[in-house]
Amino acid sequence: MSDKSETASCTHRGTTKATRYATLIGDYGTSDFVLKRGGRLHEVTMAYECWGQLSPNYDNAILIFTGLSASAHAASSLDNPDPGWWEFMIGPGKAIDTRRFFVVCVNSLGGCLGSTGPESFNPASGRSYGSDFPDLTIEDIAKAGHHLLDELDIDHLHAVIGPSMGGMVALAYALQYPDECDYLISISAASRALPFTIAMRSLQREIIRCDPKWNNGHYDSAEEPLNGMLLARKLGLVSYRAAEEWHQRFDRARVKKDRRKGEAFEIEFEVESYLDYNARKFVGNFDANSYLYMSRAMDWFDVADHGGSVNAGLAKIHVKKALIIGVTSDILFPVEQQQEIADGLVKAGRKVEFVSIESINGHDAFLVDRDHFAPVIGGFLAKT
Amino acid sequence: MSDKSETASCTHRGTTKATRYATLIGDYGTSDFVLKRGGRLHEVTMAYECWGQLSPNYDNAILIFTGLSASAHAASSLDNPDPGWWEFMIGPGKAIDTRRFFVVCVNSLGGCLGSTGPESFNPASGRSYGSDFPDLTIEDIAKAGHHLLDELDIDHLHAVIGPSMGGMVALAYALQYPDECDYLISISAASRALPFTIAMRSLQREIIRCDPKWNNGHYDSAEEPLNGMLLARKLGLVSYRAAEEWHQRFDRARVKKDRRKGEAFEIEFEVESYLDYNARKFVGNFDANSYLYMSRAMDWFDVADHGGSVNAGLAKIHVKKALIIGVTSDILFPVEQQQEIADGLVKAGRKVEFVSIESINGHDAFLVDRDHFAPVIGGFLAKT
Repeated sequence: MSDKSETASCTHRGTTKATRYATLIGDYGTSDFVLKRGGRLHEVTMAYECWGQLSPNYDNAILIFTGLSASAHAASSLDNPDPGWWEFMIGPGKAIDTRRFFVVCVNSLGGCLGSTGPESFNPASGRSYGSDFPDLTIEDIAKAGHHLLDELDIDHLHAVIGPSMGGMVALAYALQYPDECDYLISISAASRALPFTIAMRSLQREIIRCDPKWNNGHYDSAEEPLNGMLLARKLGLVSYRAAEEWHQRFDRARVKKDRRKGEAFEIEFEVESYLDYNARKFVGNFDANSYLYMSRAMDWFDVADHGGSVNAGLAKIHVKKALIIGVTSDILFPVEQQQEIADGLVKAGRKVEFVSIESINGHDAFLVDRDHFAPVIGGFLAKT
Repeated sequence: MSDKSETASCTHRGTTKATRYATLIGDYGTSDFVLKRGGRLHEVTMAYECWGQLSPNYDNAILIFTGLSASAHAASSLDNPDPGWWEFMIGPGKAIDTRRFFVVCVNSLGGCLGSTGPESFNPASGRSYGSDFPDLTIEDIAKAGHHLLDELDIDHLHAVIGPSMGGMVALAYALQYPDECDYLISISAASRALPFTIAMRSLQREIIRCDPKWNNGHYDSAEEPLNGMLLARKLGLVSYRAAEEWHQRFDRARVKKDRRKGEAFEIEFEVESYLDYNARKFVGNFDANSYLYMSRAMDWFDVADHGGSVNAGLAKIHVKKALIIGVTSDILFPVEQQQEIADGLVKAGRKVEFVSIESINGHDAFLVDRDHFAPVIGGFLAKT
């Protein structure tokens, strides 16, 4: 892993002209990227996008980690004018102001949207890794982001930011590189997953694995377990939103008769149609094994692994100030879990701004509730 | 449908010596049992169990409708000493006191535990109904219970009681037979399902239908869609319990290494093992089509169908007093939905006792939280 990637000209799912690639240098003393649970990757490519200008002192960089399913395309740019997944948040004059900051968003290690993951070519077997991909943890995703910054010659971050899974990765980043990051923004994340959330995710994984096309993790791109992915994604979507939002939006509205096929047990309520439409947009654009690996990484993550208790782990975070955000209607990572992170950081003597957002949008509020999220994040960064 | 059933000597899933059977007389002017959505059943057998003695005046009967998966075996008896699903509630000196009341619990129409349902023999086709079973509604389940009472020569109930789906059926019963019932106890039910709950149930149905063995609803008993049922039941269980209970019970405890197989993505957390154990107990003992039909019936049910609005529908209930119970941690039928029922009944001039139970046991609290439930129900009935 010594020279720049040659995959830059390839196209991957979810990548465009705006996507850049870096091949990571191996760990010190080895040419491999060594994962937390002992696995090794001989070659790691990371896909990322950038906005804004790196300052002459290299001191204005912000690194964004994403939720499970998002690509590095967090915002539009000249190279890719399509709106990004956090379009309202990132840009000139926006909350994450690209006139001031050099913003990097990275596709997670283990993903399938440009970075190395289970879908990547495994030189050892001559085919995709599939389920031969090594065990992946949140800490590995953080470390791959850190290696990427090395490649970009950035040795200090102004801030690390992440929502959902990215919020766990941001915690892991701040834990593992305590002196290399001034500010931390962790959104709708948790120091560790609790049983209800584990159950919701474990069930999604089991649904995928029960699709015969999953084939123990070795399937051709033409024979992906799309059916399992469709059902798993629907369950994911149920856990990402909140009952009240759907009540206001759909109530008991029915799909119009001319959109029905007359089949037994077919879609009848608008909420079923909404789930089906949104799940189908995802399926086929995301690798099932990536889903499995990252989903499990979230279940495995436990800040207590870093010192014996959650508070001992959080005490390893040495940022100047942290912004911890939760949403009252989140059933996946309830707001008590963000409160726990904030309390632990305060206990460790850190400065913390904890914001509990009253939104009906559930876990996914950071994606859609611009009015609540942009001022909180913009206000925090403006004071840094 | 004119004479007593001859199936009484047969054994069905979930039935024992304590189970009794009645063959329903058809609707007035027809020998068929006509369902709300227009379907017809030429022969309907209902399975039920009884406890206590019917008074000389026939005025001490209580009818219990069950949740989706429960049999008529709500409590033990001489004929079946196995504990019933509501063992702590029903019996001599218990909350539903069989020294005072004649208690009947009925297996729902459409079920598979003794009453006519999709698994029953369809004389028209010469095989099980499967998905040829007519569209089933909550109102039909209530009506079948009413016909059963006719068979037992009971024309007036002291009370109708039901938890979960049974709580919807109890509402439908009190709506449809307003002058035939003195008291109503509806537990953890709703006047209609809202989109989050519809989504959770719709997804369970889709998971079952996606099992190739479902075969459009026509499968042999040796080839049931067990895999789909296992996954659907797990999702059901997730929706029946509450995050806080599992947090206290399992936290992040792991399954011991000697209980693992070393497979990729295998069960690792105790909560996964709990779900698997409980789902496997169910699968194989419950018919997939019954699950589909009753699940959909709950989505379809809407008190507003009986008068144009929920309140207009509730106003048709003429009981002397209603007890409406909800549980604060219920994510399937949130306590606001029981509050809505209580408010609607009050608005209609009914006497109502509304109890919001602070339990961590979620939707299923009525099955396990004896300390909270028994005094409330016992206290209410004692004053009747």
